[in-house]
Amino acid sequence: MLFLVLSLLPLSILASPLAPPTKYGVLLFTAFQALDVFGPLDVLNTLSFTEKNLTLSILSRELSPVSTLPLTMGTKFGQSVVTTHTLSSPPPDLEVLIVPGGAGTRAPDLSAEIEFIRNIYPSLRYLVSVCTGNALVARAGVLDGRKATGNKKAWSWVTQQGNKTHWVAKARWVVDGNIWSTSGVSSAVDGTLNFVEKVYGEGIARDVEIGIEWTRIRDPSQDEFADIWGAKDVLPLE
Amino acid sequence: MLFLVLSLLPLSILASPLAPPTKYGVLLFTAFQALDVFGPLDVLNTLSFTEKNLTLSILSRELSPVSTLPLTMGTKFGQSVVTTHTLSSPPPDLEVLIVPGGAGTRAPDLSAEIEFIRNIYPSLRYLVSVCTGNALVARAGVLDGRKATGNKKAWSWVTQQGNKTHWVAKARWVVDGNIWSTSGVSSAVDGTLNFVEKVYGEGIARDVEIGIEWTRIRDPSQDEFADIWGAKDVLPLE
Repeated sequence: MLFLVLSLLPLSILASPLAPPTKYGVLLFTAFQALDVFGPLDVLNTLSFTEKNLTLSILSRELSPVSTLPLTMGTKFGQSVVTTHTLSSPPPDLEVLIVPGGAGTRAPDLSAEIEFIRNIYPSLRYLVSVCTGNALVARAGVLDGRKATGNKKAWSWVTQQGNKTHWVAKARWVVDGNIWSTSGVSSAVDGTLNFVEKVYGEGIARDVEIGIEWTRIRDPSQDEFADIWGAKDVLPLE
Repeated sequence: MLFLVLSLLPLSILASPLAPPTKYGVLLFTAFQALDVFGPLDVLNTLSFTEKNLTLSILSRELSPVSTLPLTMGTKFGQSVVTTHTLSSPPPDLEVLIVPGGAGTRAPDLSAEIEFIRNIYPSLRYLVSVCTGNALVARAGVLDGRKATGNKKAWSWVTQQGNKTHWVAKARWVVDGNIWSTSGVSSAVDGTLNFVEKVYGEGIARDVEIGIEWTRIRDPSQDEFADIWGAKDVLPLE
């Protein structure tokens, strides 16, 4: 009888609660850190060679390309990435959002980015938050009551951006509920591969890992950089 | 007397033979691998926070943005990067060229890219060649008589693109003269950090490495992927 009922249901409805996500977005802002973005995206680009239904929206305040160049640090060496959507017109049904870090997370006005994260989070299935991007997610209130990590060189600053979060120092990444927060820059690849493993399966994550020749850290507590930068856990204020 | 002569020379002339390079370029083509580009560039972006005179040209056939999306693999998940120069109008005095790999290295017509590499190499100070990008560099004749490595998953194809090269299988990267050739994708970061160490100094490379939280492989022969993909050395024909 159960078999009969199930077999009458459209396959898409039957499968949808368990199907892995397909609709990804990445938030860009001036002076994002390139590898915070293209570490996770290279994992997902490679995943998309087999999971061909994945889509990516590249979101920023305006539709013009967004540059890695900080406005204040004197460097002239940067790259610009084409965007697809503004923060005020995101695609419907975004399932996964990636929030990178970078020097731009210290810009004086990030209200549009923080509002966007606050407003879209409740409708997401997953959030991947990288490096100093965790400061933006914390300021949006999304890390309140959660465990999270972030960039170790900027640890004291990052952890001051959210006083209701348990900031875990010795962590390459932290998973709390549907949020993968990662440490600095390169750690985003280990965090994203862990996300792919949990959501798409171990074999698929392994295929990506060896395809991109990533010497993967599988234990999230294996983090030499917490010691190098002297980062300690910061507990939430009551 | 020698002191007198030296002290009369402009400092720029005196220093120039030993000064590290400042003028970088990266070659883009449709379906480049994102991390092949943004691994090295994130190292150099970070380096440029202290080495503020670095510049980057982003070169491709046309000035329009270049996409990671392969034309033939069915994926819809990609990103586009803004370019600054065409291959027919490169900046004068380019010192370092980065050549990435990716599915686009198997496109039917890469004559413009191969010609560009062949023509510009003699005037470069250094070349960093990544992943299947080594196939393009080999086809340009630049790896003739040299040792090099390349992507391990695509090893048999890469090594067929240059039969005058000693292809070293168990190598995260290979340095031969002024060419750093790296294995697949992620290995480009280890190769580029080695380049930064040799050219700018160990302390500077270390600062970049711990800033981007890269768990660095320092021994170029530490390459688990040669075994995983069954890659063996390929000697030059003679």
